[in-house]
Amino acid sequence: MNKVEVIQNFLRNENLDAAFITTPDNVFYLTGFSSDPHERLLGVMLLKDAEPFILCPLMEVPDVKAAGWKFEAVGHADTDDAWDILVNAVNTRGSAPTSIAVEKSHLTVERLERMNELFPEASFSRIDEQLNNMRVIKDESELVHLRKAAELADYAVEIGCREIAEGKTELEVLMAIEFELKKKGVQKMAFDTMVLSGPKTASPHGTPGDRKIQKGDFILFDLGVVYNGYCSDITRTVAFGEPTEAQREIYETVRRAEQAAIELVRPGVKACELDKVARDVITDAGFGEYFTHRLGHGLGISVHEYPSITGTNEFVLKEGMVFTIEPGIYNPEITGVRIEDDVVVTSDGVEVLTKFPKELQIIQP
Amino acid sequence: MNKVEVIQNFLRNENLDAAFITTPDNVFYLTGFSSDPHERLLGVMLLKDAEPFILCPLMEVPDVKAAGWKFEAVGHADTDDAWDILVNAVNTRGSAPTSIAVEKSHLTVERLERMNELFPEASFSRIDEQLNNMRVIKDESELVHLRKAAELADYAVEIGCREIAEGKTELEVLMAIEFELKKKGVQKMAFDTMVLSGPKTASPHGTPGDRKIQKGDFILFDLGVVYNGYCSDITRTVAFGEPTEAQREIYETVRRAEQAAIELVRPGVKACELDKVARDVITDAGFGEYFTHRLGHGLGISVHEYPSITGTNEFVLKEGMVFTIEPGIYNPEITGVRIEDDVVVTSDGVEVLTKFPKELQIIQP
Repeated sequence: MNKVEVIQNFLRNENLDAAFITTPDNVFYLTGFSSDPHERLLGVMLLKDAEPFILCPLMEVPDVKAAGWKFEAVGHADTDDAWDILVNAVNTRGSAPTSIAVEKSHLTVERLERMNELFPEASFSRIDEQLNNMRVIKDESELVHLRKAAELADYAVEIGCREIAEGKTELEVLMAIEFELKKKGVQKMAFDTMVLSGPKTASPHGTPGDRKIQKGDFILFDLGVVYNGYCSDITRTVAFGEPTEAQREIYETVRRAEQAAIELVRPGVKACELDKVARDVITDAGFGEYFTHRLGHGLGISVHEYPSITGTNEFVLKEGMVFTIEPGIYNPEITGVRIEDDVVVTSDGVEVLTKFPKELQIIQP
Repeated sequence: MNKVEVIQNFLRNENLDAAFITTPDNVFYLTGFSSDPHERLLGVMLLKDAEPFILCPLMEVPDVKAAGWKFEAVGHADTDDAWDILVNAVNTRGSAPTSIAVEKSHLTVERLERMNELFPEASFSRIDEQLNNMRVIKDESELVHLRKAAELADYAVEIGCREIAEGKTELEVLMAIEFELKKKGVQKMAFDTMVLSGPKTASPHGTPGDRKIQKGDFILFDLGVVYNGYCSDITRTVAFGEPTEAQREIYETVRRAEQAAIELVRPGVKACELDKVARDVITDAGFGEYFTHRLGHGLGISVHEYPSITGTNEFVLKEGMVFTIEPGIYNPEITGVRIEDDVVVTSDGVEVLTKFPKELQIIQP
């Protein structure tokens, strides 16, 4: 059963007439067509008893077809009212829908108000959970892309380590990484690449800049690529020159925390249990106050997707789920360290997609 | 009167109790704090008769303060329910608001439903237009950033032209541009840089790749930088080797269309009149079917912002507005050409921010 059929089944089971899907990542999931429509209207209309169609900017119709979408692509020009075109396309397929599922976690209030006007008889319900539940389990064809994305992330960290040198700036190392990746065919990073050095490693969301790398620095890489629409997300922290005892202690604590979480991954375990086992290691070592964020997040078409791996999420792991595990300690007096892997839940355990070594790498000045 | 006071005045005039602002670009506009919160809750709560506060992820509280926000920054950890913390912070400031303005073009249906639960007595109205009307007029301090962003975009095209050589790929030219910009301190491009060559210039939304530049190609650069939170957006199309007559005709038509629109810019003119004057030039030259998009878009903190310069928008230009003018002709048999400038409406005309030459640049192979 393909994805369109799964949603049509959902509509029949829930006794809904239609679903209108507008999150770009969900549109990609359903159609293979990837686009950032900005403020223009892009959406897939799925109907219980008729053919679906995609509504998209007119100039993107050829790209939708090229992406493999087998149904109609209805284009709208910038001078059209895209919503009128949507209604017309729905009307040609049968009677007006009286119940429409939408992504309430994405659809804006303004767009819902417009749909309310255009389909005045319709009620609106959520389809977010249905789409999350579909996307959270990756099939083998998706895992192929995720594995390749992770391999490219490993390679990126390898380049980063090779580029580290006294006096080089964070930005110079960052650009060298991205240039090598582009040469390998990477079209898009999954998010802004992070190369932080020295005290800047203690900022979980720092910005790479002109700081020159010095002996004694820890250097933190956090990066990922998009490969065939799927993301990777890796963090490694390495030492430039011999680390101090205090730096080593932080590093090894994060490493043990990360390893403890990885070893717990298997179907049936709860997301919050992963967070707890990692956090306990860090808290027991006396660094609890410096681990200021959740353990991880789902990974796939979006770099942050469902589910969130937090201390309160009772979500039960299932085979085929992919997410990050990324504990960190951010001690501004000593150093920041974060270690992050992308993992897949297998039938009886875990597959770690990112493979760059986690023994503390000491780059010799 | 600062921006917070302007909104508090708006609340008093409209007899509203509160405004909750969650668009990251509007949060930046009000607070100076720039952040992509992903799915986390980030927002500024403005109250008619009490001090405003920003609600943000706990780990970003120091960054908010560093950005210059003078009021309270209320942090929420990943394990908190951020909405409960919002309600508590509102309650400590007085009675529960019964009328709240929100950005309906940004706020999700899910978030509005949550606010409905938390403030059951409240009605919700739009504040989008108020914020658009504030942001659409740039003050001198904003123009300083926009001019600098445009200057860096000019420089980027200059580098691009210098890098063009037979057999080089689009991606190699692109990376050389971005590397030079990073060395100049540019932290972020305004959008994915576009370097397209030969037949790929005929795709308004093409993706740079491994295509090798050849003699006879036109090469299209579309790029912009973010400087102190403000964007630029330039397009130039140049020839590699002597152009054909047909290529020249398309280039000169786009150039005349762009110039005609620029010359019409002044307070009192309508957005649609700009689109029309440019489109008429292209249509009269017989290329109307190949100009498939609007003339331009507002530019500022967002790379695409209010207003849209289309053939149907009756919006009247005012002094201090900044937007793009970017006609194009995309003829797959001959070439694509787009020329784009960033312009400011002055008291009696126009200031063009982007200054890279528009006479057809012929790069000698």
